[in-house]
Amino acid sequence: MKTLLRVLDGEAVWPPPIWLMRQAGRYLPEYRALRQQAGDFITLCTTPALAAEITLQPVRRFGMDAAILFSDILMLPWALGYGLSFREGEGPVLPRLQPGDLSRLDPDRLLPAIAPIIETVRRVAAALDPALALIGFAGGPFTVACYMVEGGGSKDHPRIRALAYEDPAVLAALIDRLTEATVVYLAAQIEAGAEAVMLFDSWAGLLSPRQFQAHVALPARRIVAALKQRFPQTPVIGFPRLAGTLLGIYAESSGVDAVGMDTAVDPRVAARLVARTTALQGNLDPMALVAGGPVLEGETRSILEAMRGRPHIFNLGHGIVPATPPEHVAALVRLVRDA
Amino acid sequence: MKTLLRVLDGEAVWPPPIWLMRQAGRYLPEYRALRQQAGDFITLCTTPALAAEITLQPVRRFGMDAAILFSDILMLPWALGYGLSFREGEGPVLPRLQPGDLSRLDPDRLLPAIAPIIETVRRVAAALDPALALIGFAGGPFTVACYMVEGGGSKDHPRIRALAYEDPAVLAALIDRLTEATVVYLAAQIEAGAEAVMLFDSWAGLLSPRQFQAHVALPARRIVAALKQRFPQTPVIGFPRLAGTLLGIYAESSGVDAVGMDTAVDPRVAARLVARTTALQGNLDPMALVAGGPVLEGETRSILEAMRGRPHIFNLGHGIVPATPPEHVAALVRLVRDA
Repeated sequence: MKTLLRVLDGEAVWPPPIWLMRQAGRYLPEYRALRQQAGDFITLCTTPALAAEITLQPVRRFGMDAAILFSDILMLPWALGYGLSFREGEGPVLPRLQPGDLSRLDPDRLLPAIAPIIETVRRVAAALDPALALIGFAGGPFTVACYMVEGGGSKDHPRIRALAYEDPAVLAALIDRLTEATVVYLAAQIEAGAEAVMLFDSWAGLLSPRQFQAHVALPARRIVAALKQRFPQTPVIGFPRLAGTLLGIYAESSGVDAVGMDTAVDPRVAARLVARTTALQGNLDPMALVAGGPVLEGETRSILEAMRGRPHIFNLGHGIVPATPPEHVAALVRLVRDA
Repeated sequence: MKTLLRVLDGEAVWPPPIWLMRQAGRYLPEYRALRQQAGDFITLCTTPALAAEITLQPVRRFGMDAAILFSDILMLPWALGYGLSFREGEGPVLPRLQPGDLSRLDPDRLLPAIAPIIETVRRVAAALDPALALIGFAGGPFTVACYMVEGGGSKDHPRIRALAYEDPAVLAALIDRLTEATVVYLAAQIEAGAEAVMLFDSWAGLLSPRQFQAHVALPARRIVAALKQRFPQTPVIGFPRLAGTLLGIYAESSGVDAVGMDTAVDPRVAARLVARTTALQGNLDPMALVAGGPVLEGETRSILEAMRGRPHIFNLGHGIVPATPPEHVAALVRLVRDA
């Protein structure tokens, strides 16, 4: 079995497999070169030849243990007919969800709209080195809802935090629809060749423990349960960013095979909170990867040692930042391989 | 002994004492009326008659167990001669720290500059109902450094996160100076009548565990140790916001008497991570206080039950937001008192 899948199956492998969140992207000159060929970011994500090539670029250059589909968590609402654009340097722009917008989310649009993304998965699966695993992904429904309710990124997320208390039925209905669409989306990725899937719930840490259970952990449980029914062998990685003390509750409630740790998580405490049968993934500070040198070595060894003997996938605590020198990524892969 | 101080001394009191972060401020009509009399926010903080009155407004109206000095964590760099202004609706604006700016932080300026703030503490101490406790505060050095390095609030704090790896000596020197000034500042507040002090480290959750130890927990330890030497009876509350899995390490390393839990913290998990001799404070979601009604009751009871039998101070998980109806605050105080 491929190393990444052995760990997701509960085995402690030494040295651990490594891949990096946003390992394909702006820090790579070969990405920037391809990027100029596409008109905009959505075209890039929906042009299988380009998206497949971008997915393969980092594993070709650095030889990580897995490739992850090049796409964006907001391609799901886009595929449901919800407006989306990306402004250079500003991030995503969406309409702010209005009462009545829920009926505009059209599940019938979904499969035709995601077809080029699924075709990308198929092409990568066919082209990928057979020793490497292919990871598909979607946003956590709560995080996707954050972007829809706020109309883009946000510093404090005031609208969705208010909505969660003032009109919980609307938020629950939105999350329900996104949850159902996420199952369809991830199932299609698995059928096309994704060997594991990951749920990115970047804003899971905004909520109180009770709301976290309702809007993050339970939707994850529904997605995991629905996928396991059809694809019992396909592991699911959950990444409830900034969940902190809630990591153990997330792991138990959701039934994911691995939990991603963000940068601030103490791996030793996470190992106490999360049952040993669940793998842990993470959690090098992306800024340590920018810095490189002895700092990168020190932080990397500290995580490796804390996780030794546990099923562990080495990764960052958040996505690679554009300022990252590619040679530091190469050094990190060597560091982990030579551990 | 006053209820709040008994809990800080390690006693589990039922029902627990209650006060609320930002209990004085914009959600109160009597604050907004006074606010118009001052030219700007800094004038408000440095006019003892106004600041003392604002400090007393919420306890007079709602009868919480403690008053907390009305001020701002950025009054410390301001008192050291660092530029500061507040723009309506935009938050604080500061110069972005440049190499060489450290020498512009002038400790000789500190005591004269904070004199009106200390006079405010003195006036509140004299006027406060003797059953209630008076809390002084400062920002955690790392959080104050965040505002100085970013030049104000920030969504992702890119500059300080890069600085922490690229020039750790500069960050350490900045935090050292702020740590020393914080000791002087809090000691003056205690001498003027503050019976407990709190360190607000709002951005403690940005850092990796190793950096958290260096830039958050150890400065807190230095502040606690220096204050305990002079004022062994005065408890210190630490609030490392978004620290999550690091709460236990913070409590142990810093030696604080109580740890504040932010909104996302599961109180039962915090109770496992933090030794029973350290009190816990928090952590109602401020948005539940905006919502009021059964939601407020449910969230409040859930926290009270989780903390019963532990030394616990009821509070929010973050500051009161301006949209909070004052009658919901009154209802919350009753709910906790009648528990």
